[in-house]
Amino acid sequence: MEGAMTLNVYLSGEIHTDWREQIVTGAADLDVAFNSPVTDHGASDDCGVAILGAEENKYWHDHKGAMVNAIRTRKGIEDADVVVVRFGDKYKQWNAAFDAGYAAALGKSIIVLSQPDHQHALKEVHAAALAVAEEPRQVVEILTYVLTGKLPG
Amino acid sequence: MEGAMTLNVYLSGEIHTDWREQIVTGAADLDVAFNSPVTDHGASDDCGVAILGAEENKYWHDHKGAMVNAIRTRKGIEDADVVVVRFGDKYKQWNAAFDAGYAAALGKSIIVLSQPDHQHALKEVHAAALAVAEEPRQVVEILTYVLTGKLPG
Amino acid sequence: MEGAMTLNVYLSGEIHTDWREQIVTGAADLDVAFNSPVTDHGASDDCGVAILGAEENKYWHDHKGAMVNAIRTRKGIEDADVVVVRFGDKYKQWNAAFDAGYAAALGKSIIVLSQPDHQHALKEVHAAALAVAEEPRQVVEILTYVLTGKLPG
Amino acid sequence: MEGAMTLNVYLSGEIHTDWREQIVTGAADLDVAFNSPVTDHGASDDCGVAILGAEENKYWHDHKGAMVNAIRTRKGIEDADVVVVRFGDKYKQWNAAFDAGYAAALGKSIIVLSQPDHQHALKEVHAAALAVAEEPRQVVEILTYVLTGKLPG
Amino acid sequence: MEGAMTLNVYLSGEIHTDWREQIVTGAADLDVAFNSPVTDHGASDDCGVAILGAEENKYWHDHKGAMVNAIRTRKGIEDADVVVVRFGDKYKQWNAAFDAGYAAALGKSIIVLSQPDHQHALKEVHAAALAVAEEPRQVVEILTYVLTGKLPG
Amino acid sequence: MEGAMTLNVYLSGEIHTDWREQIVTGAADLDVAFNSPVTDHGASDDCGVAILGAEENKYWHDHKGAMVNAIRTRKGIEDADVVVVRFGDKYKQWNAAFDAGYAAALGKSIIVLSQPDHQHALKEVHAAALAVAEEPRQVVEILTYVLTGKLPG
Amino acid sequence: MEGAMTLNVYLSGEIHTDWREQIVTGAADLDVAFNSPVTDHGASDDCGVAILGAEENKYWHDHKGAMVNAIRTRKGIEDADVVVVRFGDKYKQWNAAFDAGYAAALGKSIIVLSQPDHQHALKEVHAAALAVAEEPRQVVEILTYVLTGKLPG
Amino acid sequence: MEGAMTLNVYLSGEIHTDWREQIVTGAADLDVAFNSPVTDHGASDDCGVAILGAEENKYWHDHKGAMVNAIRTRKGIEDADVVVVRFGDKYKQWNAAFDAGYAAALGKSIIVLSQPDHQHALKEVHAAALAVAEEPRQVVEILTYVLTGKLPG
Repeated sequence: MEGAMTLNVYLSGEIHTDWREQIVTGAADLDVAFNSPVTDHGASDDCGVAILGAEENKYWHDHKGAMVNAIRTRKGIEDADVVVVRFGDKYKQWNAAFDAGYAAALGKSIIVLSQPDHQHALKEVHAAALAVAEEPRQVVEILTYVLTGKLPG
Repeated sequence: MEGAMTLNVYLSGEIHTDWREQIVTGAADLDVAFNSPVTDHGASDDCGVAILGAEENKYWHDHKGAMVNAIRTRKGIEDADVVVVRFGDKYKQWNAAFDAGYAAALGKSIIVLSQPDHQHALKEVHAAALAVAEEPRQVVEILTYVLTGKLPG
Repeated sequence: MEGAMTLNVYLSGEIHTDWREQIVTGAADLDVAFNSPVTDHGASDDCGVAILGAEENKYWHDHKGAMVNAIRTRKGIEDADVVVVRFGDKYKQWNAAFDAGYAAALGKSIIVLSQPDHQHALKEVHAAALAVAEEPRQVVEILTYVLTGKLPG
Repeated sequence: MEGAMTLNVYLSGEIHTDWREQIVTGAADLDVAFNSPVTDHGASDDCGVAILGAEENKYWHDHKGAMVNAIRTRKGIEDADVVVVRFGDKYKQWNAAFDAGYAAALGKSIIVLSQPDHQHALKEVHAAALAVAEEPRQVVEILTYVLTGKLPG
Repeated sequence: MEGAMTLNVYLSGEIHTDWREQIVTGAADLDVAFNSPVTDHGASDDCGVAILGAEENKYWHDHKGAMVNAIRTRKGIEDADVVVVRFGDKYKQWNAAFDAGYAAALGKSIIVLSQPDHQHALKEVHAAALAVAEEPRQVVEILTYVLTGKLPG
Repeated sequence: MEGAMTLNVYLSGEIHTDWREQIVTGAADLDVAFNSPVTDHGASDDCGVAILGAEENKYWHDHKGAMVNAIRTRKGIEDADVVVVRFGDKYKQWNAAFDAGYAAALGKSIIVLSQPDHQHALKEVHAAALAVAEEPRQVVEILTYVLTGKLPG
Repeated sequence: MEGAMTLNVYLSGEIHTDWREQIVTGAADLDVAFNSPVTDHGASDDCGVAILGAEENKYWHDHKGAMVNAIRTRKGIEDADVVVVRFGDKYKQWNAAFDAGYAAALGKSIIVLSQPDHQHALKEVHAAALAVAEEPRQVVEILTYVLTGKLPG
Repeated sequence: MEGAMTLNVYLSGEIHTDWREQIVTGAADLDVAFNSPVTDHGASDDCGVAILGAEENKYWHDHKGAMVNAIRTRKGIEDADVVVVRFGDKYKQWNAAFDAGYAAALGKSIIVLSQPDHQHALKEVHAAALAVAEEPRQVVEILTYVLTGKLPG
């Protein structure tokens, strides 16, 4: 009876390391559909003005891009059963925390991927999560367990 | 990881030019399902009385038709991830603005297609949109970017 | 662009004439999935006690059956885009009016099938409907128009 | 700790006997706010045309009235914690069953007031109720118990 | 039992005539709380830049204002039991139609105030309304009837 | 017209007997998709620490596991049309009652599988169910009836 | 700025000790409204038959009572900001776990009052809680902190 | 007609400057109810262990506190019409961004208080806001305008 379930997983947050590839590769044999934001940093920053016209003011340049990206992000989170939010070691990453809050209010199951030195600063985000992991491998193990009942090792 | 998403897009508003065809043709290679209202103006006006019986009073003639069309319109908007609302240069187009308000209250991602001379009159509708475009080509570019992360050019 | 839509239609109400067959047959070429309550009157009345054990008290006999039937009815209405509610010329038919109220509160598109002599007694139910028809053929014509934009004749 | 609760109760259904007065009088000492439809039969039938203009067609005459009454009915049911639905011994009373279905879909607590000879015909409505009573006095006793924990006698 | 109900009414749309005053004055004896958008046209247009800083681009000037006004408009509609939407004889009035659509999707009771020459263009908006009136006096009569059961005359 | 429906059924509760297998086998010919919690008791208890790291404190050991299991349980219940909750004759089984409450608040159709000696203690849970059965065979018969209209024997 | 908040707290579960009184007394100076089920065990068991008529079958005797009690319980939980669920050391207490599941699905803040020897059996219930306490005093301290920001001692 | 509205405003984010006092003082004459998180940093960090017992592991120490604080934060955001989120110039402030995401998913009107040098990093948060201000005074001016229609100066 285990295994009939399909999971839709949204991979939110840090876009500078290969953590998404590790999870997708590791979960290749599972019944999981993954979605994520656009991870091409330049395209993500400029999509608004590239399509809808240039803005002199940097605020509106960024605004137009963030609005277009929101079409994808909202769809990704709203369709998800599980939202994985990764916090890296650089940048403000407020969009990751925003996504976590958005997912929490929708009642999504949240898995946070973060490092111990961010533990105190992330305590409110962790408190909304069903699992806090440090390694992409652990996310794969959670998905494996949730879908098959099998534990690692 | 990009591309697994399917978008359901509802094309609301003006029915006298070929903007829907331009978008559907332009997005032919994308994973998008399009829906729209009945765009045969005569059928749309008369569907109520043609099926359910004539009315002497023009108000009820129109009412019966609007109610039957609402079966399709509501379904189209409620199932949509993205609602594109086109304002043309003629007519009152209150049904387009009504659809935009309906979509906004449901939290749909809204793209408005309109011309600069309507900008001030549409400011409340634009404020509910994630993108405001002038050309159908731009809608195709947004859908392309949202689904593939690719920008034009 | 017309025709991509699929409709889920629930056929509620009177179970003593062949109106459901007429609609299903008439809509055979359309992209419609139909559901309905169990229309075997005897099975519907006795399902509770037949499966879960006899009751001496007629109230509980009926109650057990109504509860089991509710599993199907709720699912049918909640999954539906369109709920057709047929009032015949006999019996109290409070379950039909109950289904109409249930569907209305869920925001479903409602089509009522009824005869002119019930018009006054059904005015509150009619007021919640998007169409009031007298013949199953008209329901087929509505579904045809909603899905294809084609009018009869 | 018992008694801090206030109940909003909507009294739906039959308008030809004094059952509402019996309940309101009986519950005079309880923290209950009652609402009900307009119970002046003539006003209820004619409110639409009296305010918004005459209709030659009886269907639209009734429709306009039912729509105006719906402003009150919807508000009454949506604000209610408990909906009492009374079925009398005359008329079709489809509006009562419609209200019961509407209340059920909104998850309201339903009390049905009906007579034994309608038991079989009301089984689906009864199955959605938390209590089925025969006398207004019993409704008062339920409200008393729910608010104070006191049983009769 | 009639009269215990309080109605929250939002008055949307045209801001150049005294229709709101007529309704509020006419309903002075009723248990109604009225809300409306800011009706000072100049303040409404400029509120964004007056508070948050000037914009060179007219689009963003209008956008900032529309967003600030949305704080009031959304609250007004979401809290309302009844939304009255008035269409005057000038301007595009897309914001009125937008509000009607927004209210419809939230299941609010809608009363439209419009003139006969706009009937065909407003048919989709009318189809979402529970009453269509021509005079503010009729809105007062509806509110009076809904709250007291009394008809005019 | 009967049979087009597909049911998603979640099997909650007791994990020490083969009741799930009996139901799944018995329903093999029906259009039903079954889901259930992980039924490997050891894996279920230890999944949190096995994947996310050991805990000295038994409370947090259990907590981590319960949170990971919740990813599967919530998904299973939220996707279900019908939730079957089985109470066995041993252990506290508070998680079964918790699942029943969770399912009830979401409006799911609930079938309870329990023995007569637990009847009084389960009366609140039974009151939220559409059917109370003693044998897995009866659950199969209910699913058969709901999907095909056929009664046993 | 702290203190403007009012909390509605529902006290669910065990009815044989004075834990409710301890909390209500301890929180006497706070802006809290408490509600609870009827805690008179006999009245709670018999309310259905005492008001609505005797039943020979114990199952229906209990069922009628549980349904009447549900009017109060549902209202209490649905209106609550915080649901405190107390597990005592006797009885099955499935209704307490059911209430916890119901509250969890509605997104209520849950505080569990339980003893260490029930820790493993309650792990799924604890995982849905924002606080797990052993003493009523701790619940008072939490409410005090939440409303005033003051910690004990 | 302007002024009948009452606003519930939640003040989220940075707790080291007096921005909340400035807003509350500035809005003293308006019909606004303010709520905020506990702003005593030490109490906020330790509330979990101070009330519910010490933890050796810093992660669980923080976790217990974050969970208790969530009782207040959730209530504050869920009851709010407007959520003001302030980003200061120090710390990670992921809880502020989390609150913004939570508020956005609930459809709250969001006002962000932030400085220009954070503009790019906050673009996703800004895109979910109806206003982006730099000074508490501007928030007061927005609230004044929304409630009275009066602009500054």
